[in-house]
Amino acid sequence: MSDKLLLVPLGGMGEIGKNMFVYQYRDEIVVIDAGLKFPEDEMFGVDYVIPNITYLLENQAKVKAIFLTHGHEDHIGALPYVLKQLPVPVYGTRLTIGLLKIKLDEHNINAVLKEVKAGEEVKIGSFQLTCFHVNHSIPDSIGLAIKTPVGTILHTGDFKLDQTPVDGKVTDYFTLTRLGNEGVLGMLSDATNAHRLGYTKSERDVGKVFEDIFGKAKGRLIVASFASNIHRIQQVFDTAVRFRRKVAVVGRSMIKNVEVATELGYLTYPDSAYVEIEELDSLAADRIVIVSTGSQGEPLSGLTRMAAGSHPRINIVPGDTVIFSSTPVPGNEKLVSKVIDSLSKAGARVIYQGIADVHVSGHASREELKLLINMTRPKFMVPCHGEYQHQAAFSDLAQLMGYDASAVLSVENGHVVEFTPDSARVVGSVTAGSVLVDGIGVGDVGNVVLRDRQQLAADGVMVVAATVDRSARKVIAGPDIISRGFVYVKESEDLLSQAELNVSVALHKALQDHTDWVALRNAIREPLANFLYEKTRRRPMILPVLLEANRN
Amino acid sequence: MSDKLLLVPLGGMGEIGKNMFVYQYRDEIVVIDAGLKFPEDEMFGVDYVIPNITYLLENQAKVKAIFLTHGHEDHIGALPYVLKQLPVPVYGTRLTIGLLKIKLDEHNINAVLKEVKAGEEVKIGSFQLTCFHVNHSIPDSIGLAIKTPVGTILHTGDFKLDQTPVDGKVTDYFTLTRLGNEGVLGMLSDATNAHRLGYTKSERDVGKVFEDIFGKAKGRLIVASFASNIHRIQQVFDTAVRFRRKVAVVGRSMIKNVEVATELGYLTYPDSAYVEIEELDSLAADRIVIVSTGSQGEPLSGLTRMAAGSHPRINIVPGDTVIFSSTPVPGNEKLVSKVIDSLSKAGARVIYQGIADVHVSGHASREELKLLINMTRPKFMVPCHGEYQHQAAFSDLAQLMGYDASAVLSVENGHVVEFTPDSARVVGSVTAGSVLVDGIGVGDVGNVVLRDRQQLAADGVMVVAATVDRSARKVIAGPDIISRGFVYVKESEDLLSQAELNVSVALHKALQDHTDWVALRNAIREPLANFLYEKTRRRPMILPVLLEANRN
Repeated sequence: MSDKLLLVPLGGMGEIGKNMFVYQYRDEIVVIDAGLKFPEDEMFGVDYVIPNITYLLENQAKVKAIFLTHGHEDHIGALPYVLKQLPVPVYGTRLTIGLLKIKLDEHNINAVLKEVKAGEEVKIGSFQLTCFHVNHSIPDSIGLAIKTPVGTILHTGDFKLDQTPVDGKVTDYFTLTRLGNEGVLGMLSDATNAHRLGYTKSERDVGKVFEDIFGKAKGRLIVASFASNIHRIQQVFDTAVRFRRKVAVVGRSMIKNVEVATELGYLTYPDSAYVEIEELDSLAADRIVIVSTGSQGEPLSGLTRMAAGSHPRINIVPGDTVIFSSTPVPGNEKLVSKVIDSLSKAGARVIYQGIADVHVSGHASREELKLLINMTRPKFMVPCHGEYQHQAAFSDLAQLMGYDASAVLSVENGHVVEFTPDSARVVGSVTAGSVLVDGIGVGDVGNVVLRDRQQLAADGVMVVAATVDRSARKVIAGPDIISRGFVYVKESEDLLSQAELNVSVALHKALQDHTDWVALRNAIREPLANFLYEKTRRRPMILPVLLEANRN
Repeated sequence: MSDKLLLVPLGGMGEIGKNMFVYQYRDEIVVIDAGLKFPEDEMFGVDYVIPNITYLLENQAKVKAIFLTHGHEDHIGALPYVLKQLPVPVYGTRLTIGLLKIKLDEHNINAVLKEVKAGEEVKIGSFQLTCFHVNHSIPDSIGLAIKTPVGTILHTGDFKLDQTPVDGKVTDYFTLTRLGNEGVLGMLSDATNAHRLGYTKSERDVGKVFEDIFGKAKGRLIVASFASNIHRIQQVFDTAVRFRRKVAVVGRSMIKNVEVATELGYLTYPDSAYVEIEELDSLAADRIVIVSTGSQGEPLSGLTRMAAGSHPRINIVPGDTVIFSSTPVPGNEKLVSKVIDSLSKAGARVIYQGIADVHVSGHASREELKLLINMTRPKFMVPCHGEYQHQAAFSDLAQLMGYDASAVLSVENGHVVEFTPDSARVVGSVTAGSVLVDGIGVGDVGNVVLRDRQQLAADGVMVVAATVDRSARKVIAGPDIISRGFVYVKESEDLLSQAELNVSVALHKALQDHTDWVALRNAIREPLANFLYEKTRRRPMILPVLLEANRN
């Protein structure tokens, strides 16, 4: 396969999260993005999910660089873990690199970081990469045109086509059409909203809604949003200034993002528009805006703590207006709804998407995707950044535009896609998947551990401990039973003492027939499990701990 | 308080679920509804949540009857548990009683069940109850007008005002306006949709959308819906007949509901419209409709198993059209989205609310609530069947209509509301809350057990077992360490043997200073917990099990 261009997605296919795409030509590899994903509900105790990079480690010498499209967690969040094993240069725009630096500092990682600008060309071996500006829900986002000896690949990154972006910088239509004119072999396109009809609304539309709400509010305004949505925060500042309010910033990640974005010039406001949280008391309620984390109902975030009355500085009072300038990420709906309820209870007026248009998506809808395809006319397309349903919707859309079904590839993580100048197909697969991060541990929590946690969560644990002298076939100590998460012990003393008796009988009996540990443990486990299930319809994890008496 | 009317909600206030409302006049109590709620995410292992009925048990002799408004789980689901402790007559309409019977049979409960009809009056002591028909997402739903010596209370039950209901039976406007004319002291109103603008759409509108989808589908049609939504199922049958398709029914609860509803005449269709699932193979794909459970992505439901390829009879194939005729209950969004993705992957076209209007709510929106208030003009109102935000939206709405804020009471579970002929206020509170059902156990899982399950779920468990001879201050056996759900043991042998060494040192040292169990256990637990946290940033539950050697 030496003279072909390979694409190997290690994340971001059939899922929204942990984006990572490997492009390979001969002995050269360029990686685009290295993101994380938040754990599924049943992944108890897991903090993050990152891509399995076995393929890159096996080809370590070939990896020349990692290119970043923008600064969202699902595109840069895995870098601290990846760079530890794979110390290669990282390219990104100024804001992306700025946000990455915070993250790497927290992990004490030194990396070679190279700043690029939209419009710039970077040559890495046989790859010639052109960065082009795209609109997205974080500033300084780019897509990449990757020229290779085999052909040009258009890697859109996350994007939308916003005709009135807050910073005035529209997606680079000239580069897109120029590439289309020169010929695009393949396009990896954001498919997140491939099922959504029409066009995604402009970020600026949210500003108009803010204006309306700010104009009517008589008390404090509290706006919760993603910390990285700098344009949204810009609009909060702009509207605040218009209504002679000052803005305070709450929540660790919000403070960091505002700091970096202000320092780098992505967020601009007069000094007088900013107020420290400590100085809020000196302002009248109708002069205050608070920008906060917590738009997803995160338990430790600023807004959630305000709602719970546990924030050290800010209490919700009647007259407050709280805006959720976001929509819940799937899975967070209940958390968000609880926070809304607590805020209402504390007397706040709560405004969220559905009550008013206080949020817009950062991803292109169907009409934008069609426009993109018409501007670039790629020979082949690979929908990414989507679950299967979104990838299928993208394929459906391309076919509506006259493409052959075979021109849109259905690709999964780990697939190896081979491009020649006039073909594209899946030719095999490599190791790929999810690595779970729990605390310091990376990858030491897998299916076995998760299955145990799930059983422990459902019905708790029952430990049976005894010391035996196997040669004398005698029980030296125990058996004792301890349970946690099974029943309320004080109210179930009868049940537990019956269980202990059962175990004792079973152990003494088993010692007559067996001396090997496995047989003895099974002789305890099975009757106990059956007894407990019969009495309670529960299946706690049963842990027989049999000790041999020390021979000293 | 003898000559006053009391209302004590034991469930359904500040929440959507486990509805239970106690009306008390002198020594007589009538209860309305006895529902369950599904557990919150963090209630690991819990099957259902039911109301705490301590108040009723303390006043057992006074309880004359339980009245049911309709057959949904959140109104009848707690009855098997309640009737075991409180065997009183239960009143309900024919379908409600029919569905309840199935439930009671499963629990082997005999109860006095009394069938009532919309329009009927029932006298129970000083209470005179008039049942009136309302529209809701299950047939045979009623509201209750409760005449008492103090005044009339209007208990709406769950309702909407559907001008074109599928069975032609509209909400009983005559009784509502008559009551309004005679004077309504208080109204307990469904507040679920008090925040939704306008009117809730008619159930019949879904039928039109079905017609459109059925007309275009070339393969099989699979419709997932709540099993109790008989009118929805009726519309599936009606549309199937129109397009010469036959209907098969899949899923335990769907089969039972269709059976009961057909038997009692709430669901009508020609015999030829029905087909057994075993006979589906004899029909062409475009002659088939399958009605299935699984609209909430429930892991064991018919549709989820079809999507996973594990249903014994039905595999999803390209050409199938699947309709989710429902919206996800908050918390189920991710489950539903996963099923949609699997169905898409298997080749089905999936249609859900948002893509087409294939679902309508069963609860009145703001304009309907206003209409209800104008028809009945109650002196006082208590919004129920809603979280705080919905109750607050109801209050806001009443004030928009000119009511004084004090006319809408903000009531929580356990509050005692006292009505006199011209006043209503909260005068105290009684025991109320949640009882958790896990397997056979009712109430034996509480906060302690749940907190343990949460810790076990997050970081697993580590058992430290040893047998000691305290008088000799010697360790007879162990200490041994066993962990589950903490780390993948095979890859962490070093960590675990270090931990075992730590524990051994700590135990031997502690035995020099202490002989009481608590001190010994603490001497193990604390250093081990610190060691593990430092190495892994995890906090597994540590269970020291110390045995005393038997003195025989």
